[in-house]
Amino acid sequence: MDKRLEILFRRRSIRTYTDQPVSEVDLTSLLEAGMAAPSAANRKPWHLIAVTDRALLDQIAETPAYSRTIGSAPLAIVVCGDPAISSWWVQDCTAVTENILIAVAGLGLGAVWHGCLNREEREGPVRRALGIPDEIGMASVLAIGHPAEEKEARTQYDPERDHRNGW
Amino acid sequence: MDKRLEILFRRRSIRTYTDQPVSEVDLTSLLEAGMAAPSAANRKPWHLIAVTDRALLDQIAETPAYSRTIGSAPLAIVVCGDPAISSWWVQDCTAVTENILIAVAGLGLGAVWHGCLNREEREGPVRRALGIPDEIGMASVLAIGHPAEEKEARTQYDPERDHRNGW
Repeated sequence: MDKRLEILFRRRSIRTYTDQPVSEVDLTSLLEAGMAAPSAANRKPWHLIAVTDRALLDQIAETPAYSRTIGSAPLAIVVCGDPAISSWWVQDCTAVTENILIAVAGLGLGAVWHGCLNREEREGPVRRALGIPDEIGMASVLAIGHPAEEKEARTQYDPERDHRNGW
Repeated sequence: MDKRLEILFRRRSIRTYTDQPVSEVDLTSLLEAGMAAPSAANRKPWHLIAVTDRALLDQIAETPAYSRTIGSAPLAIVVCGDPAISSWWVQDCTAVTENILIAVAGLGLGAVWHGCLNREEREGPVRRALGIPDEIGMASVLAIGHPAEEKEARTQYDPERDHRNGW
């Protein structure tokens, strides 16, 4: 694994967190990193919702998919997109999501990505808790905190998925 | 912009390249970085096709969307996904795409992302040139090379897209 790309290999899914809150400085860095993502025709269709309010986090954590992670995380970021701004909003908001996850690794934090796209049981409760308008899409829900578990850097490179000059 | 996250802010869309090829070492690092991405339930539905053959690159560059970029790039990577492995393949393969773009910045290379999802005029010519099976999805086409233009690091942070504890 290339040392210059260490931040990418250190990004792992971290599902348990200490009680320590994420600082406002780090949160700002995460949002700046997210909004450094590319977007089709540079339309930037994203909206990020950072949730630090414990009552709101606990409300979201009532949904089984989120109970273990957001139930113990001091921060959640919901990555939303406006389909009226760009028909590419899902891919653009996924690039934002991945940027935030990599930034999390770069700051020594831990996070896990919950997909929620077209999954009403994962989307509805978050939408209602945060008042996200019906016309706004939801790409991802991220639980973020200081890691209470350690994982090694890794690639999952598989030569069978590495095709050269044709399928 | 947080110094620790510099690699993310240095990722910019680079559309012109020198004649210098991308080394096999760097190409391997890009593929390892791509396959370090997260995926839903860790299903890893991706397939990466690296194209360095000039005749194939030129064939792809006959399509107007790719002519300026892949016409001058020494490398293209096509990020494909297998919907039979995961229904989340678009988001998973977009995370792979963003990982590769960030790795490109980390290696001092330059790249631009062409979206092709559900755009037959962008997907068909690449599919035919590379023999990509009909049942395999195509998420992105990346043109990659040594940059012949310079762009400054940046975020596109916008306080109007930064929502706290609710929409």
